[in-house]
Amino acid sequence: MRYDGRMIDTSRTRRAVTLDEATAILARTPATLDALLRGLPDGWIHAHEGGETWSPFDVIGHLIHGEQTDWVPRCRIILEHGEARAFDKFDRFAQFELAKGRTLDSLLDEFATLRRTSLRDLAALDLADADLERRGTHPVFGCVTLGQLLATWVAHDLDHVIQVARVMGRQYSDAVGPWRAYLRVISGEQG
Amino acid sequence: MRYDGRMIDTSRTRRAVTLDEATAILARTPATLDALLRGLPDGWIHAHEGGETWSPFDVIGHLIHGEQTDWVPRCRIILEHGEARAFDKFDRFAQFELAKGRTLDSLLDEFATLRRTSLRDLAALDLADADLERRGTHPVFGCVTLGQLLATWVAHDLDHVIQVARVMGRQYSDAVGPWRAYLRVISGEQG
Repeated sequence: MRYDGRMIDTSRTRRAVTLDEATAILARTPATLDALLRGLPDGWIHAHEGGETWSPFDVIGHLIHGEQTDWVPRCRIILEHGEARAFDKFDRFAQFELAKGRTLDSLLDEFATLRRTSLRDLAALDLADADLERRGTHPVFGCVTLGQLLATWVAHDLDHVIQVARVMGRQYSDAVGPWRAYLRVISGEQG
Repeated sequence: MRYDGRMIDTSRTRRAVTLDEATAILARTPATLDALLRGLPDGWIHAHEGGETWSPFDVIGHLIHGEQTDWVPRCRIILEHGEARAFDKFDRFAQFELAKGRTLDSLLDEFATLRRTSLRDLAALDLADADLERRGTHPVFGCVTLGQLLATWVAHDLDHVIQVARVMGRQYSDAVGPWRAYLRVISGEQG
């Protein structure tokens, strides 16, 4: 990749999306969050970053809603309608109703089941990597490709793994004392 | 907690460290990273964020080195010497030598084994929560407590879970197309 007139080596910093690699990561998310969260005391499950920010419990509800309404349904819209029909909008707050009165364990179980179904449905579409160029219409962005949708599904998973670990780590912002200077999760630096 | 003259509710944003809660999270880290990483193609394992930044493979090596030289050894120094003996400095680059020629699977296995041993050693110290006030000397920060050390061990784990997920998510910075605006892992925003 050329940038600022110099050649930048992106062999370890950027990847093109392929069906095999994207689904390999998508398949790992439920077990990752299960390993991190199942069985923790309620104070950790319902911890958040203040104000209207989300807890680990809220995040799992949000991921469930995504499986139900967002990812595979949008793939199907691209394959069936191309650019002619825009995606339905995604409700970023549906998890609060959906998860009311539930236990974290039952949400983790449901997310794992729904993700397995999503990946089975995706496999049944029998796509080739060439299909990743197929186009659809996002209600805000306009033209997007099936490959961009798939890459976004993966990055969205990882973003929420980050969020859960960040919410948890920041609970100890005071408890770590002077070490806060070395801990990016607490200092807020990403580098 | 009082801040700027107003009472701030920190019941969901801050936690005091306890032995039970800290060890509950420490026990989960090896399985979390195992679920996220084991079996992924090499391109993902050795991905990084450019320059001298670390890959998921480097991070697991770093966590191994921490188990060997940092956490429980520092607990012991506090218990045996109090503030009289400063901790040994931690080598943040030891993983490059340690992990040379290894497979990721063998590093994940070793980290899991070492962590189990660390938690068994910690349990054998038979600490009470009151011991978390005991003091030691950090070579840079000066006086620190056992509780701060334990909280830092937990936050350090979570910081590296974040790092691994961030390195992976950013591989798709270009692949996600216009969705990059919605993905904090790519836009760089933490909120």
